[in-house]
Amino acid sequence: MAIHFEPAEFAARQAAVVARLNERGLDGLLMFRQESMYYLTGYDTFGYVYFQCLVLGADGRLTLLTRLPDKRQAEMTSVIPDIRIWEDREGATPAVMLRDLLAEQGFAGKRLGVEYEAYGLTARSGLQLAAALDGFCTLSDESNLVSEFRLVKSPAELVYVRRAAELADLALDKANTMAVPGADEGHILAAMQGAIFEGGGDYPGNEFIIGSGPEALLVRYHAGRRKLDAQDQLTVEFAGTYRHYHACLMRTIRVGAVPQRAREMHKVAVDAMAACLETLRPGRTMGEVFDAHAKAMDAGGMAAHRMNACGYSMGTTFSPNWMDWPMFFTGNPVVIQPGMVFFLHMITLDVDAGLAMMPGQTALVTAAGCEVLSKRSLDLVAN
Amino acid sequence: MAIHFEPAEFAARQAAVVARLNERGLDGLLMFRQESMYYLTGYDTFGYVYFQCLVLGADGRLTLLTRLPDKRQAEMTSVIPDIRIWEDREGATPAVMLRDLLAEQGFAGKRLGVEYEAYGLTARSGLQLAAALDGFCTLSDESNLVSEFRLVKSPAELVYVRRAAELADLALDKANTMAVPGADEGHILAAMQGAIFEGGGDYPGNEFIIGSGPEALLVRYHAGRRKLDAQDQLTVEFAGTYRHYHACLMRTIRVGAVPQRAREMHKVAVDAMAACLETLRPGRTMGEVFDAHAKAMDAGGMAAHRMNACGYSMGTTFSPNWMDWPMFFTGNPVVIQPGMVFFLHMITLDVDAGLAMMPGQTALVTAAGCEVLSKRSLDLVAN
Repeated sequence: MAIHFEPAEFAARQAAVVARLNERGLDGLLMFRQESMYYLTGYDTFGYVYFQCLVLGADGRLTLLTRLPDKRQAEMTSVIPDIRIWEDREGATPAVMLRDLLAEQGFAGKRLGVEYEAYGLTARSGLQLAAALDGFCTLSDESNLVSEFRLVKSPAELVYVRRAAELADLALDKANTMAVPGADEGHILAAMQGAIFEGGGDYPGNEFIIGSGPEALLVRYHAGRRKLDAQDQLTVEFAGTYRHYHACLMRTIRVGAVPQRAREMHKVAVDAMAACLETLRPGRTMGEVFDAHAKAMDAGGMAAHRMNACGYSMGTTFSPNWMDWPMFFTGNPVVIQPGMVFFLHMITLDVDAGLAMMPGQTALVTAAGCEVLSKRSLDLVAN
Repeated sequence: MAIHFEPAEFAARQAAVVARLNERGLDGLLMFRQESMYYLTGYDTFGYVYFQCLVLGADGRLTLLTRLPDKRQAEMTSVIPDIRIWEDREGATPAVMLRDLLAEQGFAGKRLGVEYEAYGLTARSGLQLAAALDGFCTLSDESNLVSEFRLVKSPAELVYVRRAAELADLALDKANTMAVPGADEGHILAAMQGAIFEGGGDYPGNEFIIGSGPEALLVRYHAGRRKLDAQDQLTVEFAGTYRHYHACLMRTIRVGAVPQRAREMHKVAVDAMAACLETLRPGRTMGEVFDAHAKAMDAGGMAAHRMNACGYSMGTTFSPNWMDWPMFFTGNPVVIQPGMVFFLHMITLDVDAGLAMMPGQTALVTAAGCEVLSKRSLDLVAN
């Protein structure tokens, strides 16, 4: 059985969410976010690529509606006691099956929260859901209800987060040693992702970002690998992932002689990281951390060369996205608490000079401040 | 520039889609499916994890609305001439920015198609879109309009599909040789995915499926690796991926003595594959291929041990899903044509015996029938 937490931990999480439902006067929650299902039950799948819903009643009852290929997956990876199947056929109407299930369980005329902000609930499925439940019950958007609990990690979760951080360090070691003139990005990527897999880790929530030359300025994955020039730059942004917990790192590694401008950008980015870490402590807000980032970047002359966000929470997000809620941007009112885990990226881009410098690392909020989880320094690596 | 097709190919694709818009009386198309954007412009990103829309007017005009981190990504990977940015801030309303953009381009009161079936357009974003465009223009669901063109591959696309199939064969070779008693699934996964990356390939649209022992019966990825027993079974379902084109393979590899029941299941599955390949030819329907699968499976005594679907189209789907539209299930009326590429999986599961046997491969529809793209046999491998 591939279940990674004790029954008591799942029970405690479920009880906390049920209490919140009752506080908000909700009779149940329709979950479409895989991370919510994984958090509450262990259910581990990419079956959310099709219509799939986990129903939690305010009495604690859990029922899954999914497709046949996920029946055994749910049995073997989760503590869900009741699994229902909808069948693929032309004109299949899983949303109507969901209504029938809800009717059977006494939800007619009741108030249900819905996770509308879910890759597993496309706008088309959302329209079908609205049509199927129109007049049957009252719906409200509760996309973040479970995520608010996921934000603070338990001791059992932090064991996995720390292992993810170790795996990220091993992947960084591969990049730092392999980024030499003539090296093939594809070989570097294979070694980095391979270090994660060989360590028992998982696919990341989104692709590792890897790019050199002009493509070192990109912060998304793209198809097509190149070989490093004698003088070059390689940007890698990646996650150690273990039991789906993420710990990200980011670097721009230099190859050959280092331009003075790259050194300047590196210094400002590292100073901005220090300012963020100083601000990342219980009681401060996400917006204040971004403002510290922006202030340090702008003081270093990088006002025109930075992003509008400088990181986000790390958790068990599923594909296509490792960027968990919430994000560091100005004005974000979320208050930082111990047990939260964040990725901080100090992205500097000088488009005219064709230069990138992007140190990033993951930190755990402690009682007094924060702890960087990577054991590797932010010093500029030049091969 | 990481653009993988000639400008003339993009122009021809755009012209075909524009002609279809005009046939349907549409003034434009709001695209939210990354595969549509990649197909028409080369735009290659996972930026669809946040609100992002590519607008195509019936006059051929293309405009992208995305976030700042994707600005250079769009410039460097696509032929999109006009890129607009929405900024992250508390209460940001990208759907309202989209309406303003559409107003500027004269779409007030016009008829627009929308890709509602898109992981990049969550139900929440769909509700925001509906609110922003209410009374502004008329919307209709055109989620498959571009996918209908993507279904038939051009000669330039088939070069990438064939390379993807080669990479899949290299990954299979790793699994076939490494699946021995005591082997760690994590090492096998590293070697398989590494073969794809080292060959210049990409991350798959969803995770490779790998499981042994009881977990060999699963058909989804899950966290947590195990080591192979002296007598064991290993199921792998994976994709060679090149320029985001997929070519899948699937196998259950035996370790140690082979149970007679596993041999029986293998024979029936291989017979079912032959029946599907015989049916996979121009003029037949997707539903007929599934029916051939079901008939062969049931004749072999596997009626209770098969799935309700036996494969799907292969294309440039993006994360979290490599299963492209359409799927082989009974009654599916889509007519098979030359240039289509399909993955066929013959999944047999004997839950009581704890046995899986799941051969699968990818085939290209030709003028007269079909061509299996893998060079590896379906013979049972036992190490």
